[in-house]
Parts: sequence; structure tokens; C-alpha cells
Amino acid sequence: MLRGNAIVGQSGGPTSVINASLCGVIQGCLAQKDIGRTLGMRYGIEGFMQGNVIDLGREAPAVIEGLRTTPSSALGSCRHKLKDADFPAILEKLKQYDIRYYFLAGGNDTMDTIHRVEKYCREHGYELIGVGVPKTVDNDLCGTDHTPGFGSAARYVAMSVKQAGMLARDMKKVDQYVIFQTVGRSAGWLPAAAALARKSEDDAPHIILMPERAFDREKFLADVKRCHDRYGWCSVVCGEGVCYADGTPISASQTKDKFANVEFGAMGGTSAAMMLHRMINAEFGWRGEFQVCESLQMCAADRAEPGDVEEAYACGRRAVELAAGGTSGVMVSIVRESSNPYRWSLGTAPLAEVALGAKPMPDEFINAEGNYVTQACIDYLKPLVGELPDYVRLAGVPA
Amino acid sequence: MLRGNAIVGQSGGPTSVINASLCGVIQGCLAQKDIGRTLGMRYGIEGFMQGNVIDLGREAPAVIEGLRTTPSSALGSCRHKLKDADFPAILEKLKQYDIRYYFLAGGNDTMDTIHRVEKYCREHGYELIGVGVPKTVDNDLCGTDHTPGFGSAARYVAMSVKQAGMLARDMKKVDQYVIFQTVGRSAGWLPAAAALARKSEDDAPHIILMPERAFDREKFLADVKRCHDRYGWCSVVCGEGVCYADGTPISASQTKDKFANVEFGAMGGTSAAMMLHRMINAEFGWRGEFQVCESLQMCAADRAEPGDVEEAYACGRRAVELAAGGTSGVMVSIVRESSNPYRWSLGTAPLAEVALGAKPMPDEFINAEGNYVTQACIDYLKPLVGELPDYVRLAGVPA
Repeated sequence: MLRGNAIVGQSGGPTSVINASLCGVIQGCLAQKDIGRTLGMRYGIEGFMQGNVIDLGREAPAVIEGLRTTPSSALGSCRHKLKDADFPAILEKLKQYDIRYYFLAGGNDTMDTIHRVEKYCREHGYELIGVGVPKTVDNDLCGTDHTPGFGSAARYVAMSVKQAGMLARDMKKVDQYVIFQTVGRSAGWLPAAAALARKSEDDAPHIILMPERAFDREKFLADVKRCHDRYGWCSVVCGEGVCYADGTPISASQTKDKFANVEFGAMGGTSAAMMLHRMINAEFGWRGEFQVCESLQMCAADRAEPGDVEEAYACGRRAVELAAGGTSGVMVSIVRESSNPYRWSLGTAPLAEVALGAKPMPDEFINAEGNYVTQACIDYLKPLVGELPDYVRLAGVPA
Repeated sequence: MLRGNAIVGQSGGPTSVINASLCGVIQGCLAQKDIGRTLGMRYGIEGFMQGNVIDLGREAPAVIEGLRTTPSSALGSCRHKLKDADFPAILEKLKQYDIRYYFLAGGNDTMDTIHRVEKYCREHGYELIGVGVPKTVDNDLCGTDHTPGFGSAARYVAMSVKQAGMLARDMKKVDQYVIFQTVGRSAGWLPAAAALARKSEDDAPHIILMPERAFDREKFLADVKRCHDRYGWCSVVCGEGVCYADGTPISASQTKDKFANVEFGAMGGTSAAMMLHRMINAEFGWRGEFQVCESLQMCAADRAEPGDVEEAYACGRRAVELAAGGTSGVMVSIVRESSNPYRWSLGTAPLAEVALGAKPMPDEFINAEGNYVTQACIDYLKPLVGELPDYVRLAGVPA
């Protein structure tokens, strides 16, 4: 196999389990005798271009092992969009550190980065093996059944909506609605996951707004009223990026980030949930609250789904095995073998395909009214989120 | 001892452990042979006046036991402020159900309710024993070292700030600040608890804004800049009720609730954290986010502090023991025997004293600058929040 050093980086938003993937890559590299040094890029490709490179072989083994349950991106992350002018500097650094194995954990922008770097090196006669490790709480990567990090974030959402829903029901004489906002700019996977909290008909959530469907104010308020009439309160879950039919975000923020994506939620200094709160309050005069957790759902290691941690680690290890076997230009993917019982295996997806764009929820996962998920969606999500705690409810026999 | 039935109710905002107290009261009453039926009021005193009373003796024992770990207020809650006109209706219901033992779990408004009901009954020749069970995530009850519910909410805050702080540090090349807002209208105990997340100097939180200190915009922005200069990012934790020197809340909401308290945070359709976010963004042009969790921190049973659950249950049991022994007009209190090692016992506080008002943080728990807590505060909080998970951090030896 190709001899040289390996480097690993983390990119984009952190998750609760991206360090488990990092742990897998590092332990995998350290176990390969043809890989020389195992290096890490601080703050992703941006740090790498500045020579911010560390020697992961000099970390204590207990620290490496501890990464498995440590949230966030221990190497530091970035959101650098590669420019053509960046490539010569990258190639120079690759040569300087004699790097032949190149691993990045991230989403589709990150897969695009690996793809372009690998291609540039090939075109310039520098042998480089590049393998991607999937990561994103949004679950919107093509080429994989789901992404490491999603299950744990989905569990955070489901736990939050379940517990706050119990509270909202118990407080319905005081407050009449609760709105929980998830991250996920254009894919509804995280708001959808809230549905796992609902066991009884009056449990939260009652309404789920996904960015795949245009927001209709009148329809929404009618839905809220129907829930209030039926239950005495209403639970709404919304994705941060929900938009009106004309594409205007309901959060009304027009700030754009470096990738020319409109910034939603708290980053834009406003929030979709707050706007929904104001709509309900203005229409009905009820009291209620909005909950905007932002990155809390991306780093709650104490709510990590154990299967998610295991898969994240396995993806890291497999990336190294693939690279050591000479495979380049792919992302490790998770293949669902069966939903019930849940069984999975690892596969690969070409980086070029993954880099193309985000994977929205399938139409058959969203109900006809566009305000909730279908049973097919729940069946898909259930093994990823895991069992939620069983809480009791009083029968309440009148005295 | 006085023969008759017992009733128990829950009042005000829920906590993760108020059902543990309910479990203690119910199991305590069921074990007392002179107490006839053990009744529950749905939706507090408001439901009671409407005859919304259930027979808790007819619940399955496993459901009663399950209350110990079930969040929120299983009986339903209210925020009814007693009017003079309410008392005859209450006395009538007490007589109708032959209630001689009256237990409510709640905060100072609730203790005031028990106190006034008990006094009214005494003045009207109806023998009633009333005992209060302390409860509030705000930890602002007089007469007790701390309140059941606080430790678990404080743990939620500390866990959130710790994990999101790691994320913010790892993302500092992209986003430069993170603001976490806690509940707690006028007491800074919950924002203060975030300090337990900080082990290294650059850990979150860097700045804690408590409602006990007037907010000064210039000073705040200077503090934020100093942190940014030093760490490259800044973590701010604020109480929802932080005000300017003239008493204007920084959240700028002017909505008032039934008790004539100004509504803060998400209830008022805005939020202190969002206003701080906008200030920082406007001043420095940085990217950042605000996190407004609202009632999520009051019902996260999966983050309940085990000692908090135990104390909450013990307070419920003790309320019944006191009542059975003929003690009335008191709230069960928690007495701190020692901080290190942490040891506690139960005591009592007169309802009349507890009802007087909220207990603010002592001056010696807030630093001279008014932007962080002191070591004395951390020593007080530590046993209530419990140990936080140990996550690893890379040494980062340059390659």
C-alpha cells in the first residue's frame, strides 16, 4: 500500500458523535503500519492551509479513546468554501507533511472539498487517497441511509418535545401552546423526529412544520385552533428554515452565510419559532412559549443514541480500511439492512454524487396536509432515535 | 390524630422532580391508617374549587411509584392567585370531601395559598392541617437551603452550557459567541449554576448576567470584547429577567401575567438572549447564536440530579409525617448540614415567612464586577448539581 502520513479533519457543524468518528479514524490509522504519522488539521481545511497541523500520535491513548464519548469537534471546525486559488497551497501542505491519506468528516460541502482536492492532486501527479466520513445532524446527505450524528440530535429533539409536551399539557390552564424549533435549514428530518415522542393522541407534538412544505399562515392557525379545541393546548415543532410559498423564510431573517445560504433561526438574530409564537398570540391572545435550542441539539453527548455512537466510530474505522485497501474518492455510507429488528452494514458512495446537494425527506414521509409525518417516516426514524423513557400518567378516577 | 381525608395539589411551574414529591405525599398518606382517602386536585386550587378531584388511592401502585421519575406536574398545575371571594367555595369543597389534610407543592405564591386557606378554615372553625412541600427551579424560596427541582434544572443549565461551550470553542473560526438564557425572573441561581461547567479558564461560561445586578450595555460589550480578545469567542449566560438600572427588562417585553409580574423571555414573545445577540452583532459584526430553552430546563427528567429526586421524595413523605403528628402551617425545608461531603436533613419553615417573597442570591455569591459568581457560590452549588461528565480535550502537539 501507499506509504506516507495520514491527516484527518472535521468540517461544518459539530455533532454529538463526530468525535467518535475521529476516534475511529485515529485508532484505525495507528493500527496501519504503512501509515506513518497520524496528523490532525485544526479548524478544518482552513487551518490546514495555514499549517495548523497537530500530531495525533502524541496524544495519550486514553484521550483518543475518550473522544468516543466527547461531543463537538475536538479538532476544531470550519465552514471554508474552497476557492480555485486555494488548491496550490493545499497541495504544497500535503507535500510538506508527506500526506498520502486524507480523511474529512462532514456534510456535502465537505465531501465536495475532498472530491476537489483529490481531483486536483490527481491532475497534478500527486498520489492522494481521500475518503469521506459522513456527518450531519440534518440527515440530508445523499448516498447513505442516514448520517452519524442525526440519531443523537433526533433523540435530543424527541426527548425535548416529549418532556416539554408533558409540561405543556399539565400547564394548559395557564399556557396554551409550546413551539419547539429544530435546526436543519432545508430538510425536515429533525422536526420529523419529534413525532417519536407521541404515544397517545394528545401527546406532543400535534403539528410538525417541515421546510419541504410551504408555510400557509391561515392553514397553520386553523390547525392550531383545531388542536386547542381538542386538547386545550397545542404543541408545534418547526424546522428553522420553514418558508412561505414564495420562498421567504418565516423567520424573516435575510442574513446570508459564506455559502450564500440564508441564515435562519438564532444566527440571524430572530427565529421561526418566535414568529409562530407571535402569530398565535396575535390571533388567539393565548399565552405560550417558544424554545430555540440551536447547537444544544448538536452536542448533547448525554443524550447520544448508543447505536449512533457505534455507527459513527465504525464509519471512521472503515474509512481507514478503505483507504488502506486503495479505495479513494468515496464516502463511507450506512446501509440499512432491516428496520425491525434494526440491522445495518457499511457501504460506500462516490464523493461526486454526495457532493451534489442535500437529500430532502421523501414525499411519502410527509402527510397529505403537510403538517405531520406518516407512519413510514416513524418506522424509518424509530431505530435511529432508540427507545424513549416511559413516564407514567395518572388514570385520574374522579373522587 | 385528626381523622379525615387528605388532598394534595401541585402549583406553579413544574419541575423534573415535583412528581417525586407527589409520590412521597401519596405513599405517605396511603401508609397512614387515620387518613381515609388520598385525593388529588387537578390543576391546583383552581381545579379544586371546580370539584376537579381524583382518588389517588385508585391509581395502580406502579403508577404511583413511577411518579418518582416522571417529570412535570402529573396532577396538572395552575397559577391562580386566591381572591377573598374564593375562600367560601374552598371551605365548602373541603367539607364536601371531608378533607382534613391539605398538601400543596409549590413556590412562595403556593405557600401563601396554603397559609391563607388554613387561616380561613381556623377562623371558621374547620379543623384543617396544611403543610407545604417546597418546589421551584428558581431556588428563590425563603426558609430552605435550596428547593427541590433546582438541582436538576441547574444541572440542565450546566450541561447545556458545558456542551454548547465546547461546540462554540471548536467553531470559533465560524461563530464568535453563544448566549444561553435561563428561566428565573428575579433570582440568579440558574444562570449562576452555569459556572459549574467551567474547569479551564477558556471553558464556557465567560460572563454570567444575573437579575440581581443592573445591566450596563457598555460594560457588557467591553466584557464580551475582552473575552473575544482572549479566547477568540465568548460565552454569555443570562437570566431571563435581567434589567437595566431603571428596571426596564433587557428583553423589552412589557406583557404582565396574572400576578402583575412582567413576562420575560419567550412568554412575552421576545427574549433577553436575543436582545444581547443583537447588541453584540450590531457592535462587532460577529456571528453567534442565542439559546432559549424555557420550560425544557424544568422538565428534563433524563438530566435529573439523583440527590434532587431523593430530596424531593423525602420532602413529600415528611410533609405527611408532620401533618400526621399534628403540625400545621409549615413548609418542609431542606437543611444543609455540610457542603463537603454534602449532608442534608429536613426541617420546617413557617408558611407565613416563606410566603413573604423571593430569596435573591446573597451578595457574596456575585463577584464585584457583577458579571460572574464567586467561589462561595460554586461551593454552594456544587453538591446540588452533582458531578458533570468528563470530556477529553486534545493536547494538540504541533506536527
